[in-house]
Amino acid sequence: MTHSPPVIDSGLLLSMLDTISQFGATGDGGLDRQAGSTDHGHARDWFRECLTQMGYETRVDAIGNVFGLLQWAGPDAPTVLTGSHLDSQPRGGRFDGTYGVLAGLCAIEAVRRHAQETGTAPKVNLGVVDWFNEEGARFQPSLLGSSVYTGEMELAYALSRRDGDGLSVEEELTRTGYLGHDKAPQADAYIEFHVEGNTELEESARHIGPFARYWGAYKFRVAMIGEKAHTGPTAMHLRKDAGLGAAYVMAGLRAISDARNGTLYTSVGRLVLEPNSPNMVPDRATMFIELRSPDPDALDAAENELMELLQQSSRRAAVSYEVLSVDKRHAGAFDARLVALTESEAAAAGLATLRLDTIGGHDAVPLSRKCPAIVVAVPSVGGILHHPAEFTHPHDLVNGANILARMLARLNACGGDLDAGLAASEVSRQNQEAG
Amino acid sequence: MTHSPPVIDSGLLLSMLDTISQFGATGDGGLDRQAGSTDHGHARDWFRECLTQMGYETRVDAIGNVFGLLQWAGPDAPTVLTGSHLDSQPRGGRFDGTYGVLAGLCAIEAVRRHAQETGTAPKVNLGVVDWFNEEGARFQPSLLGSSVYTGEMELAYALSRRDGDGLSVEEELTRTGYLGHDKAPQADAYIEFHVEGNTELEESARHIGPFARYWGAYKFRVAMIGEKAHTGPTAMHLRKDAGLGAAYVMAGLRAISDARNGTLYTSVGRLVLEPNSPNMVPDRATMFIELRSPDPDALDAAENELMELLQQSSRRAAVSYEVLSVDKRHAGAFDARLVALTESEAAAAGLATLRLDTIGGHDAVPLSRKCPAIVVAVPSVGGILHHPAEFTHPHDLVNGANILARMLARLNACGGDLDAGLAASEVSRQNQEAG
Repeated sequence: MTHSPPVIDSGLLLSMLDTISQFGATGDGGLDRQAGSTDHGHARDWFRECLTQMGYETRVDAIGNVFGLLQWAGPDAPTVLTGSHLDSQPRGGRFDGTYGVLAGLCAIEAVRRHAQETGTAPKVNLGVVDWFNEEGARFQPSLLGSSVYTGEMELAYALSRRDGDGLSVEEELTRTGYLGHDKAPQADAYIEFHVEGNTELEESARHIGPFARYWGAYKFRVAMIGEKAHTGPTAMHLRKDAGLGAAYVMAGLRAISDARNGTLYTSVGRLVLEPNSPNMVPDRATMFIELRSPDPDALDAAENELMELLQQSSRRAAVSYEVLSVDKRHAGAFDARLVALTESEAAAAGLATLRLDTIGGHDAVPLSRKCPAIVVAVPSVGGILHHPAEFTHPHDLVNGANILARMLARLNACGGDLDAGLAASEVSRQNQEAG
Repeated sequence: MTHSPPVIDSGLLLSMLDTISQFGATGDGGLDRQAGSTDHGHARDWFRECLTQMGYETRVDAIGNVFGLLQWAGPDAPTVLTGSHLDSQPRGGRFDGTYGVLAGLCAIEAVRRHAQETGTAPKVNLGVVDWFNEEGARFQPSLLGSSVYTGEMELAYALSRRDGDGLSVEEELTRTGYLGHDKAPQADAYIEFHVEGNTELEESARHIGPFARYWGAYKFRVAMIGEKAHTGPTAMHLRKDAGLGAAYVMAGLRAISDARNGTLYTSVGRLVLEPNSPNMVPDRATMFIELRSPDPDALDAAENELMELLQQSSRRAAVSYEVLSVDKRHAGAFDARLVALTESEAAAAGLATLRLDTIGGHDAVPLSRKCPAIVVAVPSVGGILHHPAEFTHPHDLVNGANILARMLARLNACGGDLDAGLAASEVSRQNQEAG
């Protein structure tokens, strides 16, 4: 592939983004298109109709993931999936998730057109995917569709999740027509493009940000348990102040983070005192504690330190404690070859890159435990995400989709062999620089 | 007064207590007789009827305080008031307040009868008082009637206080017939008996507990003000965590208390984080902070330390703060001569005493800033107060009323001259011991 690379139809990408943004539009530039809602269903209907008209085989699996497949390389060829999700937060933006789905479709289209124009043989099947309920705003947990896809979550469990009104995933998928029966295609690699939820690209004036690592998050719900008493007559040494116990934990937790120099994020975002009356010593303080780190060992060490801190703090405040729930999302790395391929293709296209970590969840995280996977970021103005003001400049949207197209073309050319694709990409880049 | 002391009619005291406990009875031994309620009005109607039948002049002043006066010593003689309050907490007990009113009436009756039997000349006018809205459960603040009486609170302000349903003190006093026009008698001394809200008498097996001091309470509403951010991507050094600032304050406040060895009580009973979401750094944490001490200087010093702590804690958490409100109830001492008189009369009656501090509010606190005043406690089983299970043994009720009668008789005998009364009481006690 020494001739010119594939180039996406930027008009198609931007017009599709405009059109789909009407489904669930909140009138202020934002979206309310929560998973399983009527608007979400309409957006998917429209997207599926586009796929069909463009000649893709569409499939809907049992947890409502939508696939558009270009099975041009035959049943024995590997499959590379790209995509993201069409659901949004309750007051979300137009770009989060949706961009990755539409960029994926436009990139595959570019690869197909480029192959026809250059006579390149199809060696890898390509597919675009819209994962169900990435956001987890309406149905918890998040990453529902991709986690069922990879087998990390039981289908029955996922279908039985209910929203605040008591409606289940199964009921809402049925109602909107997305409780499918199709077999999901098996991915041999997965590439997701996404708008950045931070300002690192913007501040460093880079265009393309391959995520090298995903942070893990350990979440704990912990209750400090004391004894209710009047704040007037009760002698200090007799108080069992659950709020004080929580304060010791919150202060100590920050010290645990500070000792790790930016590689461990900690927080207590939610704290509920009971009875929470000005003149009562609280007998219960329930904290929602998070530990986040890109380093699995650091997370485990921090968990141990937290458990020790809970003991110390409860002893110091003369209260007891109970760990009510633990939710662990493990840290890990995306495929290093896909990071290198992103960098190589971006460099060849003259776009500056910056390796990033992703701290929030992406469908690529469960995928990465099944096959080589990556998330690649394009800049988002001000790092705004999950807000109607979310905005990515059209040239950044197009740049990202073009890099995705180049990566898919490279994987197709080498038959899905990442090492070979990477080597070829490197040669191409050097040729381009030399030229 | 070397002959036998006055003795109350214990049958009268206990039967009056039984009868009045029917007004607002909750069926479980407790009372719901909140200030200005229909039941409160009925209890006062019954009490006023008793006063009239027993030959007392009754008065109702402009804030609904009820007085029963024995003006037997003429208009130029001093007046000693005794009493407490007939209102209760929403789920209160039968003894709190009510005991002091009925013990006051029975003690005056005993003094009157004793004077007749012994031919003692009346030198001091006596009066029993039922202060309006001591509890502050329905209308805030508490101590409403006694604070207006002493001039610490404006009448118009007190009348304009509204309950949770929007009804005003003025409306409810009018409805129940207690918006009075009578001139309140001026007190030259005030003695209040009350059930103890603690177990100090019970644990020390003492019978009579003169309160020597009343604790002050400084109450602060303080908001720590940070910046909302996601707990995932936001770097630790960029966070302005209002909850963390509050945690530093709570932990530091306890250290301020610990350094003062039991003479300073501190608490944060109420804390509200906003938005209080598990994955958001809170941008606002509103604390309700209390400092309590019997020592006015210690309170002022602690206030200074708190202000410094707020600065340090906010700086440390990179947030700002705002003191939203300050409410100061100053600490002070009850009249030392009344403490000594209580002890002297109790000793003469063979009852063991223990000097106590009161941390909660009593009507005697505002009174003490106008005239010699005291609160004297009798034991309450388990220290229970403001609860249907509140209970004081009949012999303790009778003991208290008898000591009150002796104190009133002593003050009558000496024409209200506390120093002379104290000296005479001491002589009487020694005679009794010698006898």
